[in-house]
Amino acid sequence: MREVAILGIGQVPVGEHWDKRLVELAGDAVFAALEDAQIKRVEALYVGNMMAGQLDKQSHLGALIADWVGFRGIEAMTVEAACGSGSLALRTAMIAVGSGLISSALAVGVEKMTDTSPRETTAALATAASADWEAIHGVTFVGLNALIMRRYMYEYGWQHHDFAPFSINAHANGALNPNARFQSPITENVYKKAAMIADPINLMDASAIGDGAAAVIVVPADLIKGQNEKPVVRIAGSSVATDSLAVHDRHDPLWLSAAEKSSREAYRQAGVGPEDIDFFELHDAFSIMAALSLEACGFAERGQGPRLALDGEITRQGRVPISTMGGLKARGHPVGATGMYQIVEAVQQLRGEAGPAQIDGAKVGMTQNIGGSGATIITHILKTE
Amino acid sequence: MREVAILGIGQVPVGEHWDKRLVELAGDAVFAALEDAQIKRVEALYVGNMMAGQLDKQSHLGALIADWVGFRGIEAMTVEAACGSGSLALRTAMIAVGSGLISSALAVGVEKMTDTSPRETTAALATAASADWEAIHGVTFVGLNALIMRRYMYEYGWQHHDFAPFSINAHANGALNPNARFQSPITENVYKKAAMIADPINLMDASAIGDGAAAVIVVPADLIKGQNEKPVVRIAGSSVATDSLAVHDRHDPLWLSAAEKSSREAYRQAGVGPEDIDFFELHDAFSIMAALSLEACGFAERGQGPRLALDGEITRQGRVPISTMGGLKARGHPVGATGMYQIVEAVQQLRGEAGPAQIDGAKVGMTQNIGGSGATIITHILKTE
Repeated sequence: MREVAILGIGQVPVGEHWDKRLVELAGDAVFAALEDAQIKRVEALYVGNMMAGQLDKQSHLGALIADWVGFRGIEAMTVEAACGSGSLALRTAMIAVGSGLISSALAVGVEKMTDTSPRETTAALATAASADWEAIHGVTFVGLNALIMRRYMYEYGWQHHDFAPFSINAHANGALNPNARFQSPITENVYKKAAMIADPINLMDASAIGDGAAAVIVVPADLIKGQNEKPVVRIAGSSVATDSLAVHDRHDPLWLSAAEKSSREAYRQAGVGPEDIDFFELHDAFSIMAALSLEACGFAERGQGPRLALDGEITRQGRVPISTMGGLKARGHPVGATGMYQIVEAVQQLRGEAGPAQIDGAKVGMTQNIGGSGATIITHILKTE
Repeated sequence: MREVAILGIGQVPVGEHWDKRLVELAGDAVFAALEDAQIKRVEALYVGNMMAGQLDKQSHLGALIADWVGFRGIEAMTVEAACGSGSLALRTAMIAVGSGLISSALAVGVEKMTDTSPRETTAALATAASADWEAIHGVTFVGLNALIMRRYMYEYGWQHHDFAPFSINAHANGALNPNARFQSPITENVYKKAAMIADPINLMDASAIGDGAAAVIVVPADLIKGQNEKPVVRIAGSSVATDSLAVHDRHDPLWLSAAEKSSREAYRQAGVGPEDIDFFELHDAFSIMAALSLEACGFAERGQGPRLALDGEITRQGRVPISTMGGLKARGHPVGATGMYQIVEAVQQLRGEAGPAQIDGAKVGMTQNIGGSGATIITHILKTE
């Protein structure tokens, strides 16, 4: 497979876009990516989305968005693996371009979640879990994560306030990102006093839903030179691994085996290890997920994710900066778009375009997007020279 | 891209499978494909499905089905373009294997539509149309096709009974297919007396929904020899094209421009033309769609699709046999699975395994799967030696 690079990026701020339809959000991100790439046309469009059929009563987003952005006729489709849909759109585009079949592709992640009632949105989100063994009992996604976090605290002896640095770091970085849903830093006191949602997960442990769209344009890496003065960002590693949908069915509910497997494969492809990663855009849908990702990807020992955070190693000045533009916690988590925001933000960092959130001299960035409570995990490693 | 071939096929009969969950249907098709291919393992799984999130309250089918069939951990995801989802799973698998990244992949199409009320199922189907310009007015899919058929009859001077041969041919062939939902031939009298659904579409013009699953295993073509005594079936052409979701927005609502575009590209790739096609599994969701596909793919002049049928050229003895195993009309139309049934049936024909429905000496088969009322159209050409 030929090597693939990212030529352009685009995003809309995450928020409650009651004035825009889903296709308009997607279009705005696409137009920004086209302008950034300085190209007029692509051959294919891959959409990452989870819930448009349920919440917008609109399936078939591929043809819809292709037409809206002026590319009526091109190849288009949607890819889905719950909250992991966004980065799967990138992987699908990468393989299509890498195969030689397609010369340029758009990957766009989009989700519109705030036009429906919280009850409808929560029910739609629950379809990412096992309908037969989890959702049927009424457990929501935050409920499932609360069960995992409670068990984790019991097994490894952590207190709730030990997770505070994850939330504080995300909000500190989100304050520097004009596209983040929340742009105010929080204090430890705010974390401690936040309302409980599903004990032990409080409001500051949970990411917020939102409306959003982000897009990238991918082309063969050897064609990129001369087209764009910006640093070339190559996709050096890309891997997907899966696990059981139902948490209880896993060998160890406190270990993200799909994160371990997909990060190992991505490291192998990129020829790097955890020590070479300059920043890590992980899937901090809940604080506990940030801890589990850091452990499964080799940044912390088993059960010691919170230690890394307490030691300040996850900040922009630390050993492994995470959620550098706010993460899911502060940038927001428009489900099918989230994985694409991670990619777009990683490219911003690698190009030196992250503004006040910039990680100095970042050359190797990793992103990790999680579908469900760990059942589909997609890791990408991006590199610049 | 390296050439890709189909090593194994599997299917379950289309029907009302009230005793099986969606994952079980998918699993049964996968197990049959694995047994047919005589292999134990694949590297990736691509699922074609449209409505599981809406009707089964279950998204995230990739990881779910991978786990169910014993492949926990492998790469997996869902692809969707409404009723075109099934064949997109094949195309995604083909590109992944063709790229060299994946050595063997499963593509499975699955849909479960009969556990919900007709109202729920009809509403879910309508998400394939434009939510903003079509579904919002309450028009169903059969309603949209009725508008197209009425206009077609007006423009080209056809009477309703001129479409009878499409339905009669499909049911005659379905009677020879043990996996078809309807296995009884019909007469012209049955067609004429069928209840009207949305004038001019009557019950015999419309395909039936159903529960179903079909699967194929794809591998590099050069690896297939020696693994299986069955004839090697290569994917010689594969192309996707799109159009506007809303019918009124097309230059000509009576011309499937995406079918023309994708069939032309598939012909080019395979080095063949319409005259070389031994049989054509087209998307006869409604009689009018069969006529429009035949025209757009070069088998009939514009407005003359029904003439081909009236002349008997679409039967198994005709110039371009269609719906050779019953088509959507008689085999049934379990939406996200339909495109995969077409592929599986084409492989049966090319291997000489179609039983009493066999087209003698078939070497080149074409399939065409349509999403929505023509907005996403996927054409494949399969060849055997």
